[in-house]
Amino acid sequence: MANDQPPRPSRRGFLKAGSAAVAAGASLGATGVAQAALGKTPAHGADPQTAVEPFYGLHQGGIVTPQQSHTYVAALDLTTEKREDVIALLRAWTDAAARLTQGATAAPLPTGAAAKTALADTKIDTQVGTKSDAKANDTAYSPTNTKAAPDSGDVLGLGPCGLTITFGFGPGLFTKDGKDRYGLASRRPAALVDLPRFNGDQLIAEKTGGDLYIQACANDQQVAFHAVRQLARLAYGTAAMRWGQAGFLSGPRGQTPRNLMGFKDGTNNPSTAKPQLMNEFVWAGATADAPWMEGGTYTVVRRIRITLEHWDNTEVDFQEQVFGRHKYSGAPIGKKNEFDAVDLKEEDKDGNPVIPENSHVRLSNHASNNGAQILRRSYSYNDGTNFYIERWPPWRQETEYDAGLIFVAHQSDPRTGFIPINDKLAKFDMMNQFTTHVGSAVFAVPPGAKPGSYIGAGLFET
Amino acid sequence: MANDQPPRPSRRGFLKAGSAAVAAGASLGATGVAQAALGKTPAHGADPQTAVEPFYGLHQGGIVTPQQSHTYVAALDLTTEKREDVIALLRAWTDAAARLTQGATAAPLPTGAAAKTALADTKIDTQVGTKSDAKANDTAYSPTNTKAAPDSGDVLGLGPCGLTITFGFGPGLFTKDGKDRYGLASRRPAALVDLPRFNGDQLIAEKTGGDLYIQACANDQQVAFHAVRQLARLAYGTAAMRWGQAGFLSGPRGQTPRNLMGFKDGTNNPSTAKPQLMNEFVWAGATADAPWMEGGTYTVVRRIRITLEHWDNTEVDFQEQVFGRHKYSGAPIGKKNEFDAVDLKEEDKDGNPVIPENSHVRLSNHASNNGAQILRRSYSYNDGTNFYIERWPPWRQETEYDAGLIFVAHQSDPRTGFIPINDKLAKFDMMNQFTTHVGSAVFAVPPGAKPGSYIGAGLFET
Repeated sequence: MANDQPPRPSRRGFLKAGSAAVAAGASLGATGVAQAALGKTPAHGADPQTAVEPFYGLHQGGIVTPQQSHTYVAALDLTTEKREDVIALLRAWTDAAARLTQGATAAPLPTGAAAKTALADTKIDTQVGTKSDAKANDTAYSPTNTKAAPDSGDVLGLGPCGLTITFGFGPGLFTKDGKDRYGLASRRPAALVDLPRFNGDQLIAEKTGGDLYIQACANDQQVAFHAVRQLARLAYGTAAMRWGQAGFLSGPRGQTPRNLMGFKDGTNNPSTAKPQLMNEFVWAGATADAPWMEGGTYTVVRRIRITLEHWDNTEVDFQEQVFGRHKYSGAPIGKKNEFDAVDLKEEDKDGNPVIPENSHVRLSNHASNNGAQILRRSYSYNDGTNFYIERWPPWRQETEYDAGLIFVAHQSDPRTGFIPINDKLAKFDMMNQFTTHVGSAVFAVPPGAKPGSYIGAGLFET
Repeated sequence: MANDQPPRPSRRGFLKAGSAAVAAGASLGATGVAQAALGKTPAHGADPQTAVEPFYGLHQGGIVTPQQSHTYVAALDLTTEKREDVIALLRAWTDAAARLTQGATAAPLPTGAAAKTALADTKIDTQVGTKSDAKANDTAYSPTNTKAAPDSGDVLGLGPCGLTITFGFGPGLFTKDGKDRYGLASRRPAALVDLPRFNGDQLIAEKTGGDLYIQACANDQQVAFHAVRQLARLAYGTAAMRWGQAGFLSGPRGQTPRNLMGFKDGTNNPSTAKPQLMNEFVWAGATADAPWMEGGTYTVVRRIRITLEHWDNTEVDFQEQVFGRHKYSGAPIGKKNEFDAVDLKEEDKDGNPVIPENSHVRLSNHASNNGAQILRRSYSYNDGTNFYIERWPPWRQETEYDAGLIFVAHQSDPRTGFIPINDKLAKFDMMNQFTTHVGSAVFAVPPGAKPGSYIGAGLFET
């Protein structure tokens, strides 16, 4: 599974070849996988299931990687008090992530597992009895069952699906409740600020914050979730899930996808094909306070609920004023084509701005924000419906969609990126009538790992 | 857009061609679309985005249609007291569904909408002011804004994606709170029973029941959701959303997909290629009490939460005993291949059954249920995480996955299908340790519509 790795590995391949492949799989994470990977973005295959993204490299994947169709993002809280536990977790995560992104199981399956189709005469585990018994004892999260398979096996047969896994560090890794739990307080980057409260924020604690971040993106929803699920399981005893969220992008191939509001989303992103833009706006430099962040980025995640029922009842002309773009073409108002430049100075015959003062594109445009740009990498989410009861007249009871946008943005510094931009949006954006920010988190995403090392090594070891 | 319809329509096509296409699109639902459709299952195209399923036909789509990769299922409650409102809704739904399944918008977009990329000098709707104002008045669900576009436009450019839309009638259409609201009480099929409470049921009211059912299945999550969203909007004033739920299937192409427990799901379904099996187990006949149901089916939906954290910590051997199948191959225990017959009589050397007495495949097998079979068409769901607090020692607080299975089963009669099978499973299935049924619904799904008619016409008009 090193240099002789087939160009299109599949998880099934590991099984079909049986124990030999499983043994070979154990060497994943070594130089073979990494060599072609360093600093290169591979071409996406025509088949989204067999696409492979590198794991090791100067930067982590999932930042400038062309956006996959699905994501599962999650935050965990550290439950250990020991620095070495955190390092051990990051090592385990790095090794597992290297395997998973290449289409392997999180860890090698037991030798011979693939061939195990003959009669199993293992008796039923008598420890697991009735449902209440099973819940009363601690087996659900116990790491003590070393005989359990190291992978849930639910994506066997699916390819790597272009999986990327991106790890980040929240403020709580450095200090929590005023305590320097791991001797890292002095190494916290100034850029890793606690986000201020923005106008209109309705943040829910259990959808907000987190000490550690995992962002899995793939061309399949189950592959993305599978990755986080295996990593969360590896964290038992060291960190526990705080929140998790699935997201998706439904795009006509080769076109900018439309969000649930029906508008193209992400058109005016800085081009990932321009290294100077990425260096200026996305990649963190080696600051005096956090040299270990060089080649990393800062990631803001916001769960933004959208009142689709209300939005759908507004006129397209109004929706276009809200966005500052035409709905069907994606062009800036007054322009014909999606990628036509946004001209904020244009006026109509009465001297009014063609792109409204409080439209989304004007307020978020770099020209309105001292040149600031962020790399948005958002996904839609759709968690079914919620039933709610109004606590004021006319006391309506209604089922509403629990759907919206998982806003994800990478940037070199949130203090000049997301924070001033969102401060302005939160105050003035017409879109706020239809959106509510209910979750929020910010993370320092360290640079990529070298084979043999681990994500975040620079923080702990230099 | 009738007989000269291109074989691979796309929603973008409607826009690109501008008002001419929009006008032509208005004739959708006429015989052209239907002709090739009656009673035939078309070949799936190689490209899941351009696949088209027929809408009109002897049966509704989404029953024996090869399972698409995504679903959005929803139930609505009727809020009107007028029979003619219900008929009008079913007519509107039928017309819109015919269009949507063929890749069109729910209704034609206003003429020229596609070309509208020039300066829009429409002023901002002053009725929509601050957020609180917008929520306080009733604009969100008001149908009075006739100037709003008849389609949210969020899947423009995507193809039909094999969309099927299946409508069903819950018990509440016939009688509710003892009241015969629409003069239909005498026409309720005996087979449309209220489901009994099953052992272990933990049903949540707002995920349970419903007067009307919409099941949208497509090869794209946004296309499936889009369909329900447009149909729910058309229902304003007549019916309101009760619950909605997204689901997905991640399968290696041409293989049985694995559910989130890592096992292949649906292997032992009756073959949709065998009409006699479908006639016996899936299609309803013309019973004396409900002749209008001939060619329809009865659909049971269950939202089944799975404690993945606990499951992942159990041994594969144990998991195989729970299912009665081998995990990696999908073969029945003791057999080599997935499609090997389940032999419930086989014993090991000690005389114990090879497939355990309380395993899922034994208890659900037709040999254990007087020959009863149901056509399962389930999807996984993944709604992120929930935070919960135990109300007993040790007072744990934990974030857990809100993920599991949207179980969907079609059958000719739930009294001989789902009910006896699930009664047995609810009592004895080892899998119950890991699963909780939190939502439930049952619907009479009428036969397909003829062009010019509407779904359910037989109920109202004969």
